[in-house]
Amino acid sequence: MFKTVEWKGSAVVMIDQRLLPGEEVYRRYTGYKEVAGAIKEMVVRGAPAIGVAAAMGVALGASKIKAKDYQTFRKEFDKVADLLASTRPTAVNLFWAIERMKKVAAENRALPIPELKERLIKEAKEIHRDDIEINRTIGKHGGRLLKDRSTVLTHCNAGALATAGYGTALGVIRGAIEAGKKIKVFADETRPFLQGSRLTAWELKKDKIDVTLITDNMAGYMMKKGLIDAVVVGADRIAANGDVANKIGTYSVAVLAREHKIPFYVAAPLSTIDLKIGHGDEIPIEERDTSEVTHVKGNRIAPRGIKVRNPAFDVTPNSLVTGIITERGVVRRPYSKGLKGLFRKG
Amino acid sequence: MFKTVEWKGSAVVMIDQRLLPGEEVYRRYTGYKEVAGAIKEMVVRGAPAIGVAAAMGVALGASKIKAKDYQTFRKEFDKVADLLASTRPTAVNLFWAIERMKKVAAENRALPIPELKERLIKEAKEIHRDDIEINRTIGKHGGRLLKDRSTVLTHCNAGALATAGYGTALGVIRGAIEAGKKIKVFADETRPFLQGSRLTAWELKKDKIDVTLITDNMAGYMMKKGLIDAVVVGADRIAANGDVANKIGTYSVAVLAREHKIPFYVAAPLSTIDLKIGHGDEIPIEERDTSEVTHVKGNRIAPRGIKVRNPAFDVTPNSLVTGIITERGVVRRPYSKGLKGLFRKG
Repeated sequence: MFKTVEWKGSAVVMIDQRLLPGEEVYRRYTGYKEVAGAIKEMVVRGAPAIGVAAAMGVALGASKIKAKDYQTFRKEFDKVADLLASTRPTAVNLFWAIERMKKVAAENRALPIPELKERLIKEAKEIHRDDIEINRTIGKHGGRLLKDRSTVLTHCNAGALATAGYGTALGVIRGAIEAGKKIKVFADETRPFLQGSRLTAWELKKDKIDVTLITDNMAGYMMKKGLIDAVVVGADRIAANGDVANKIGTYSVAVLAREHKIPFYVAAPLSTIDLKIGHGDEIPIEERDTSEVTHVKGNRIAPRGIKVRNPAFDVTPNSLVTGIITERGVVRRPYSKGLKGLFRKG
Repeated sequence: MFKTVEWKGSAVVMIDQRLLPGEEVYRRYTGYKEVAGAIKEMVVRGAPAIGVAAAMGVALGASKIKAKDYQTFRKEFDKVADLLASTRPTAVNLFWAIERMKKVAAENRALPIPELKERLIKEAKEIHRDDIEINRTIGKHGGRLLKDRSTVLTHCNAGALATAGYGTALGVIRGAIEAGKKIKVFADETRPFLQGSRLTAWELKKDKIDVTLITDNMAGYMMKKGLIDAVVVGADRIAANGDVANKIGTYSVAVLAREHKIPFYVAAPLSTIDLKIGHGDEIPIEERDTSEVTHVKGNRIAPRGIKVRNPAFDVTPNSLVTGIITERGVVRRPYSKGLKGLFRKG
């Protein structure tokens, strides 16, 4: 099986997701600025995977700091953290992972600098290891919600490629299958970046999971034909009230799911839940370069000079969400209470 | 301005819509089999344009028949008509145009064969001329429904390129603009064939109409942001009860429009209305080659051997349609009565 992101020697290695499914190329990054670039350019993407990559980027940057005392070290360290935090605005896992690294730095300020650096690398590796474990637990909880011989629609890629491994939404599908259920999957291709056709289709096929690829605008048709039993998607940020920011198009899928009385589940780790944000409208939505819409694989598909909008995410209001599947169980309405409760369980 | 389809000398000339917006290439067809191929391969597409092309194909085929008596002629003629009718199943304009040509043949069976051939060519040219006139009238009726300074979302291409000229849905937009209104347009790119980004964006830009291109899955986001005031689309076939078959994704847009209380209009000539079909479920939906989904401009964007669905159309139930704009005025609920009434007006 492939590795999405990995700490190897003194470098961060990532599969270049821009080249999938055509080529399986691993990139080796030895500087934090390159890691930041890789996140920005979507070599790696998916909220949990971005979090892991950012933590490793912080550890990598920290390991190269020449300072001998904590104060000087910390000044440089914060620069590293700030650059990594500036790469993408929507997925909160990025900020969560960086905060976790900052906290470790602060808590271990008394350590000699070389040991502090080791401690930071250890933390980044732990975030990586934890994420896989969390996803397996999400998969167990969520797998119970899927009926045997059912067909699940998913949007974008919330799979092994979007996480340290196993996946959130695809983790739920894997969890159901590991529990002995027969599950079929419909994958939205997910324009403009085609995470569905390029990544979800690829990793499910590799896993021998029955997957059918459709364009985004076919989801409503398939639902109307009675071919979809449940929707499971990931999340980039979940507000305290249960509003969910996820890949552009998720909101439309949620509206269609309700129209057809199909349950709509969101699978995400606690690190995706942002209790500081009360309402989905407050979640910053990244607008990406227009070339993602006007070009596919470098080929122009729209007239030169055409105006384009390219919001990378949208917000699905909590009223359309049947349940949020986390590593601490499934939360249902009212979300404000349920989501807050998750953090007390720890 | 470009010509979508044209009778020129003793050939049918069409702009190759597969190459737009990159190249503006005109193809000249001198045999009806080639015209059938062009319809099948989507050199020309759009229900009214397919009707015009099929009529010209019939005229072209008829003009080459060597028979000297009507009976022998008619036998060959029906072969021509049958081949053209077999090209695409959903758009009823194709069958409507072929039936019109058959009727002209039957009505003029007494004519000497050379004159009958001329009569058929004249009819095909008339279908072409009528279509432009009809679209201008649709534009006038529909233009009144759009408010000044409003923004219209359209899906696929129901423009000059989908008709003999001017367009149905885009005709409504042109009609409003010609009536002095300021109208902005959002165009869904319309996967998999990209009629929105390749054709609608191209022809509106050429016409200096303010157009913004989005991917299909962004429509819900734009509606939620309050950026869309009305939806106008074309149709491939309208059942007697007002159910509308149109490009895949139209149904999803209609569900989203209702969710946001945005009027959803369908613009189509009477030749698109099929009173013989009672309900949208009876409309045959074409499934096209999977390569349209797995490839863009010849480049693979999905894993080899992946399962794909590719329905080219969907059906929007009449309950989601605010009004059907025809050359004989705007029909509203109850559609069964209103649509039937249109045909009595003639």
